[in-house]
Parts: sequence; structure tokens; C-alpha cells
Amino acid sequence: MDPTPSEVACFEAGIKFGSLYHQFAGTPVSPDSADSLARAMEEAIENQPYCESVTVSVRTDALRQAIEDADADYTELTGRFLDVAMVIEYEGVTVETSMAMEGDYPLMQVEDLRD
Amino acid sequence: MDPTPSEVACFEAGIKFGSLYHQFAGTPVSPDSADSLARAMEEAIENQPYCESVTVSVRTDALRQAIEDADADYTELTGRFLDVAMVIEYEGVTVETSMAMEGDYPLMQVEDLRD
Amino acid sequence: MDPTPSEVACFEAGIKFGSLYHQFAGTPVSPDSADSLARAMEEAIENQPYCESVTVSVRTDALRQAIEDADADYTELTGRFLDVAMVIEYEGVTVETSMAMEGDYPLMQVEDLRD
Amino acid sequence: MDPTPSEVACFEAGIKFGSLYHQFAGTPVSPDSADSLARAMEEAIENQPYCESVTVSVRTDALRQAIEDADADYTELTGRFLDVAMVIEYEGVTVETSMAMEGDYPLMQVEDLRD
Repeated sequence: MDPTPSEVACFEAGIKFGSLYHQFAGTPVSPDSADSLARAMEEAIENQPYCESVTVSVRTDALRQAIEDADADYTELTGRFLDVAMVIEYEGVTVETSMAMEGDYPLMQVEDLRD
Repeated sequence: MDPTPSEVACFEAGIKFGSLYHQFAGTPVSPDSADSLARAMEEAIENQPYCESVTVSVRTDALRQAIEDADADYTELTGRFLDVAMVIEYEGVTVETSMAMEGDYPLMQVEDLRD
Repeated sequence: MDPTPSEVACFEAGIKFGSLYHQFAGTPVSPDSADSLARAMEEAIENQPYCESVTVSVRTDALRQAIEDADADYTELTGRFLDVAMVIEYEGVTVETSMAMEGDYPLMQVEDLRD
Repeated sequence: MDPTPSEVACFEAGIKFGSLYHQFAGTPVSPDSADSLARAMEEAIENQPYCESVTVSVRTDALRQAIEDADADYTELTGRFLDVAMVIEYEGVTVETSMAMEGDYPLMQVEDLRD
């Protein structure tokens, strides 16, 4: 079967999440550079089609702890330092999605879907 | 509303496409190294949850032409050198997706969806 | 032979260039999002050891032209949209490096080296 | 001062290391997919100028342990799962370089330099 508008909207939402994560994972990051990275992630992914808004927060406490534990000055961006929310709109369907840690895994989820 | 299994299946399919594209875009590639890159892309993304199969072909003619046009020995991987097909299975729903060029844009699409 | 401080300084400079390029190549970019991406690139790479300063300018004219030529709203970051300058300091040696296009290839170069 | 051939050779070696690391960090990897990823990394970076050879081994024990600790099926590629050796040749100068973990940091080093 061909997908419905809701299904395409969810597909598009997934593309944005995979893009955001794998484009930026591995970027050198510290508490001081976290804000500029979060803004760049938001604005980069908002360029993609059907992407209404992207909100990225860096979990600065977790970041600071990881850097201290490694006795380092910075670390590499990975899902455990991120909270992400996105809104996708496709043919009248709005999808709200989020990424947050579930244990050690950065779980990406469809939070809400409405016409 | 909460998403249906079909909608989640499409979301998961999108994640895999965004991941594949943005993890590997920019990789130095030539006709000689295209095969090892295609295999690595397939096996890397097949690790992700609900991902049954990934098939990547490098469009070697387009690659060869781009390298010749630039009078170079290699170029960087981008969507116009790729054909990708993926099968995602989530709670009994099978999603078939593909990526191919539409003009200058690497269009990712849900081809078929079935219970 | 073991490397001299100048040789290590040049090695470190090269690491930063390869990092910057391959971390961010492929990022969705438009004239509106170019500034936040440039700032994030600078601050991310400045985290790395021995890296005194990074200056990234996006060549907005080339970017605008590429987007117009493709009849698109954005494109993917690649070397032809970037001018980069970096200063590396290692054990009293200062290395100035740059990246700019030479024909179709983003040429990275050591501009100056001094004790 | 302009750089000597040895200094340029070291700069080129650094570029390859930064490229390899930041292109592939974050890739989904498991013991089963480690080999195809290692081959793709080698062949991709060998495309770059002056790069004679790249050898990548995945530290499968560390990888298996990390996946088990996270109660997962795969993880993301990062420096602690890699040993890398490269040989760069530039205008008669041969540079041997390596990357291995020093504590929690993936240390990239010039091992040997000869005319």
C-alpha cells in the first residue's frame, strides 16, 4: 500500500532525527561550546523539508561530569548529552517527536500526531 | 494521538535513512573504494533496530564522471552517487523505502507498506 | 627519526583541518543558517588541544548560487563554500594554516610557521 | 617561514587522521559489522593525496564489552574501539603515524619520520 499523509509525516520526522544525530555525533564539545553547537544543529536541520522547528538542549551537567571523569577539557557529542524536540508538518499532519536517553540508548519517539 | 504501528514503522525507516546519509556523506570515494564503502554502509545501518535489510549501490558511472570533470582522483560521497533500498519491520508492519535522485535532490521515499 | 616540535605542530594542525572538514561536510546549510554553523565549527574545533583559534567564513555568494542552480532551499556543506584559517601552537611553535578552493579541490595549506 | 617537506608531510598525515576519525565516529558498529567498517575506513582514506597505506583494526574485545555493559546489540564507533596506523609519503619524506588510546583519549602520534 501507498503510505498515508500521517505515515509520510512520520517518515519525514525520522529522517530529520537520523540526520541530526549522525551529522553531529562525534563533534568536540565542552560546556563553553555547547550553545553554539545546539544553535547550529537546530538551524541546520530546520533547513530540511517539512521541518517546522527543532529544539536542542545540551545536558550540561552530564557533559561536565563526563569531561571531569575523563580528566579532559572536552569530549565528543553523543546522545547522552542531548535532549531534542522537533515538529514536522506534512500535508496538514503535525508530528511532535523527541529524543532523550532511555538507559544507555538515545531513544527517538513520536510523541504526538494530529491532523 | 499516539502513533499506530505503521506510523512508528515509517518513523523508524526515516531514522535509518537520515543516519545512513549523514553518517557517510563527505567520505572520500573513488570507483575502486566504492564497494567497500557500500558494504560498510549496509552493515552499519543493519545494526539499527527494526532494520531487516539495507542495499546500497554506488552509481559508478556518475562517480567516474564527477571525478573526471574535476580532474581529480576521488570525490566526496553525496546522494547523487547512491541508490539505496531498505526494509524495516516493526510490530508486523513491513516498510519498503528507497533513495534515488530526483533532479539534484536525493529523494527518500516510502515505496510500500504492508501488514 | 622522532619528529621535531615544528613537525608535531604541523601534524596537530592537519588533525584539526581533517576534523573540521569531515565532521561538518554534508550539513544542511542555507544563507540563513550559515552563521550559526560557522560559529559552531569554530568553537567545536577550538576545543581540540593546541588549537589557538579557528576562523570560518561561509562563501555566501557561492552558496546562494548553488542553491539557485539546484532550484532548492538549501544545500549540503562542502569545501567550496568555506574559507578557514587556523592558528596552532605547540611547544613554542606557531603554525598558521588555511583552507580555500584551488579549482574544485579544497586545498589545506601551512601558510606560516614560526618559533 | 615556509614549511619544509617534512613539516608538510606531517601536516598531510594529520589531515588524514582527523578525516578518518570525524568521518566515521558515531557509525553504528557491532562485532559482526566491524570488519566491513574497518575496510571501508582504510580504502576511503587511502584515496586522499600522499596516503600510502591505512590499517584499521577494531578492538573487538572492547567493543563486545561495551555492548554487553549497555545491554545493547551494537554501539557507536569511537576512538576506544580503534587501532590505526598510516603511512604518508610527501616529496621523498615518509611519515609513520598511529592512533591508540592513552587513558580515555585517542592519541594520534607521529611514530617515525624519514627521508
